[in-house]
This record gives sequence, C-alpha cells and structure tokens, in this order.
Amino acid sequence: MSAASVPGYDGPLVAGVDVGGTKTLVVVTDDLDRVLYEHAAPTDRTSLVDQIAGLVDDARRHLEQDIAAVGVAIPGHIDPGGSVSMAVNLGITHLPLGSMLQTELGIPIFVEHDARAAAFWLSEQVPGGSTQSPASIAFIAIGTGISAGIVLDGAVLRGDNGFAGEVGHIAADPEGVVCACGLRGCLETIAAGPGIARQADEAIAAGRNTVLSPHPSAGDVFRAASAGDEVALEITGRVADHLTRAIRSLALTLGIKRIVIGGGVAAAGPALLEPIRSRILRECADSPLVQATLGDASIELLSPTEAPGARGAAAIARHRIGLREREGVGER
Amino acid sequence: MSAASVPGYDGPLVAGVDVGGTKTLVVVTDDLDRVLYEHAAPTDRTSLVDQIAGLVDDARRHLEQDIAAVGVAIPGHIDPGGSVSMAVNLGITHLPLGSMLQTELGIPIFVEHDARAAAFWLSEQVPGGSTQSPASIAFIAIGTGISAGIVLDGAVLRGDNGFAGEVGHIAADPEGVVCACGLRGCLETIAAGPGIARQADEAIAAGRNTVLSPHPSAGDVFRAASAGDEVALEITGRVADHLTRAIRSLALTLGIKRIVIGGGVAAAGPALLEPIRSRILRECADSPLVQATLGDASIELLSPTEAPGARGAAAIARHRIGLREREGVGER
Repeated sequence: MSAASVPGYDGPLVAGVDVGGTKTLVVVTDDLDRVLYEHAAPTDRTSLVDQIAGLVDDARRHLEQDIAAVGVAIPGHIDPGGSVSMAVNLGITHLPLGSMLQTELGIPIFVEHDARAAAFWLSEQVPGGSTQSPASIAFIAIGTGISAGIVLDGAVLRGDNGFAGEVGHIAADPEGVVCACGLRGCLETIAAGPGIARQADEAIAAGRNTVLSPHPSAGDVFRAASAGDEVALEITGRVADHLTRAIRSLALTLGIKRIVIGGGVAAAGPALLEPIRSRILRECADSPLVQATLGDASIELLSPTEAPGARGAAAIARHRIGLREREGVGER
Repeated sequence: MSAASVPGYDGPLVAGVDVGGTKTLVVVTDDLDRVLYEHAAPTDRTSLVDQIAGLVDDARRHLEQDIAAVGVAIPGHIDPGGSVSMAVNLGITHLPLGSMLQTELGIPIFVEHDARAAAFWLSEQVPGGSTQSPASIAFIAIGTGISAGIVLDGAVLRGDNGFAGEVGHIAADPEGVVCACGLRGCLETIAAGPGIARQADEAIAAGRNTVLSPHPSAGDVFRAASAGDEVALEITGRVADHLTRAIRSLALTLGIKRIVIGGGVAAAGPALLEPIRSRILRECADSPLVQATLGDASIELLSPTEAPGARGAAAIARHRIGLREREGVGER
C-alpha cells in the first residue's frame, strides 16, 4: 500500500479499480489525475463485489477522506447499466456489478471494459508532451486474450452491440486451431499468451530443436527469440506478422494514427515491438496507401509500470460525475 | 433527365453530385430530402471541375431556382479543404476540387468520399420504418475496389489519417497476388470485380472445365455459380468467405450492427448475399461471441435503383449549411 499526500488538497477524490484475472488494483486520484493512493490484492473471484467494496473502504479510511465515485475496469461485455457478462477469465456469466456496488458503497459506480478504460486514460496522456497528438487511440491489450480499447475524438467507442474492440477474434488463420470463442484461427489463437505457448509446445512435440521447455510463458519465447532460437524466432515472427495485419486493419478501418500495445505479453518489450515496426516500415515502402495511412503513425508499447486500467476507470468516474467536462464520455 | 415538382415548395435546394469512374450523377433535393431533379452524364475526366459546374448550372436552369450548396461524392482521399488525391480510378493525383468548384459556382461546396457520403444517407434511411434502428452503419462498396463508409452515432468517420473505411486493403490472403496498392493479398484482390475476373481467368488458363469465358464480369461469375458451375462456385465461395471475415472484423472492431453492401458487384443480388448470410449463421452457431455480435445484425444489399452517393452528398451539403441540424457531421 502506498499513499501520497498533496499538501493542502481537499477536493473531491475518485477511485479506479482494475479487476484482473489474478490481481485487483485500486487507485485513488484527485481532480488533476494525481495518484494519492494505490493498493493491489489477489482477485477474490468468489466475492468480487465485497472485495471491491472493501478495497474502496480501505482507501477511504487510509486517506481519511470521502470518495465521490468509483470506476471499475473489468474484462467482458459491459451493458449500459454496469452489468458484466461473458467475462470468461473471471468465471463471470452475468453479474450486475454496477448496481450491487452502488448498493454497498452508496456512491456512483461506473463500470467499463478494461481495455476501453485504459484507452480513455491513454488518450489523455500526450506522448513527448506534444499538444498536437490526436485524441483518437487504439490500445491493444495482449494477455490471455486480445482486445482493443478504442477512443475516437476523445469518446470511448463501445458500439451498438457493445463489442467494439474485440479484435482478438478477427480471422487470422482460417486453417488454424479452434479458439475459446468457438471460431477457428482467431488472432488470439496465434498472438495471445496461451497461443504463443501452444505453438512452442507443438514444435517441441514435433521434436524440433529448441531451448524452450514445455508450456513456456510468452516472455520465455521472446527471450529465446532474442537469443536466436530458431523455433522461437519462427513463433515471434508469426506473432508479429499477425499483429502487423491487425494494426493495419485498425488504421484502415478507424483511420487511427496512435496505437499503444499493452497487457502481459507487451512486457516482452522491444522483442515484440521491433519486429512489428520493421514489418510496418516494409509495408510503407511497398505501398503508398500504407505510407499515407501508417507512415507517421505512433506505435508504442505501454510501460509495464503503468496501470492504465485503474487510472482509466478513475478518469471515467471523474468525468462522468462532472468533476471535469469531456464531451462524449459514456455517450457512445 | 427527370424533374419532379413539389407543389408550392420554394425552400432552399441542394445538389448532390456523385463522380464515378464511368458516370457522373447529379441530384437536387429539397429540405425534406425529396428528389426534384436527377441527371446522369458520362464522366469527363479531362475537365471534371467544368463538367460538375456545368451539370449544376443545368439543374439550376431547369428548375428555375437557386441551389444553396453542392455536395460532391468522389473516390480517393479527401482532405478537410475538399482537395482530392489518390483517386486512382479517375486518374486524379491531386485536385483542389472544393476550392475550384467554389470559385466556379460561387456557393458552398462540400466534398466527401463517395462511400462515406452513401453511408451518411443510408444512416438516415430506416429499414422497415423502425425507429429503433441505430444510426451507426457500415456501407461496403464493392466495385473495381472495395471501401467502406462508416457512420457512428450519426457522425461520418473520416479518421485522423483520413483513410477510415479503406477496408479493401485489410489482409485477406498474405500468399495472394499483389494488389494495386502495392501490398500482397488485400481483400479487394479477391472480392472486388477485377479480382473475381482474375480468378476466373486463372481457372480457364489452368484448363479447368467451366462455362465462363475469359475476362468475365463479376455478374457473369455469380450467374454461372447460380447455374451450378463448379469453378464459379469456388470463386464466389471464396468471395463470400472473405467478405464474411471482413464483416465480422467490422462488427468486432466498430461494434456495428447494420451493414449494407453496394457497388457494382452487389448487383449480383442474392447470389452474393445469401452465401455471406449462411456463413454468418454458421459462425453464430459455432460461437457465442459471434452470436452476441452479429446474431441480430442487419446485413442488407443496396437496391441497384438507389443513388446513395449523390443523395448522401446532397444530404451532407444540406446539413453543413444548417438547413437541418445534425450533430457531428463534418466534425469527425
């Protein structure tokens, strides 16, 4: 647990909670988005609502200050009332999280898809301090699955079906393996953590010569690739091929010029990013259209020290209760 | 040339001009989007600005009424000032169309990408008269190329790079042929008119048994498929496979639930649409995610009698000069 005090600040505070498959993180921020409190705990899937309420209460007590609203970032499908469904990694089929938390805590609760919350926060962070950065961004979270948070002109895109950004299930290899979603060859069967491990296991089972042990993490595979292991290079090359196509698809569909890659797999760092960048450079050389579309795009890796889900959840709560106006938030 | 008179109407009129590779169509509509005048002429690529100005002047003279503004729908990249570039099928590298026409005609000119203009108009047309229809739509134009016009919550999506909707160049078959854009295996190398013809020619060159003659139109191929020709069925099946993936990608990226397919290839009618619908039904059965995303989506073919580009250009001009308020138009 850590807490910072901002001398003389007694303005309204909001909490942001990021509920992950293994860890739940709570931050409390002030109206200038400064973090006053941060605490993580292992996610308690059996009593998620009680745990979140308890974590927010702990923060209130620690800070000896009221919290005006809570934003919750969580995977799955979120309906406009704050109910969560299809959150496979959390074992949630349907949970009216927003209304249950509101009853427990007695303050406004705003529930958002974790990648969208992250994208919202990132859209407010200007790289290099430039003021020219567009407020449109796609945040691609690569972990056990792949999904994107999309912000267009400052507004979070949810879509009429509520599934905007579920790019992990665009077709990558129609001859590929069956995905958890039921389709064959979705992007995440190749480029998410479990897909990367599966490809290594397939190579090992086929008797191929590699330094990799069975069931490697994505990090293991990227490290082996950096060390020149042929099997690992083949896998990370395939990952880069498909992520490059996904990025091109986002740039050509949404017209977006700023793409940030995060999630557990992004901890691989340059071993993940550089092969993507080199492929995009090659496509820019081959195609005036790609040059015009992606030639001056920013493709960044999120620093592993950032907590964009919790920060974004807090930022959304702050905007929604009107501590800071920003048009379109929650309206799309 | 045709003209309808609306008894007693003397309100402001707008013109919409759709500049196509072979034909240029002008419509004049009133503030209730009723068509008062319609005229088509072969596109004169060598003097496009003069031709458009002349067509609008003809309409003014014929109607004996002023025209308040002109919308122009045209392929290519359109910058915010109305300049057109990269309009390959029209032979335009760069043309300051908006400012040149404004000088010629002395009234406000609004230039928009043709698929976006069409999508804008379609987003205002409610299928089945329902008032529940979302104002978000993707219009996929399939002709010599493929591009999409995207409207989200009533606002035309242009994108920070101005290339939003260029879905013809998402990766379909990375082992495929080189596209006009310079990349390999773009969607339009398989599913646009010339790509369909090329696949037929390849089968003929390989000595395969087919009723098709060399260089068939897309319509020829779809007709042969309907008659049971094996080669044609193989091609139209591949086209449907890839268009289904593109539709899934749009639904999962944008969260869109209404998709309209138009352009010359769409004249194939049910022979194009039904194979796509049956594939989507199959994916819905295989995948709860696709069921939730596309299960209640509307996938329609545009009637060949509609002129959505010209109508959309007129509608955009009408909205931009404030004859009818609609938030967000032209702002994205």
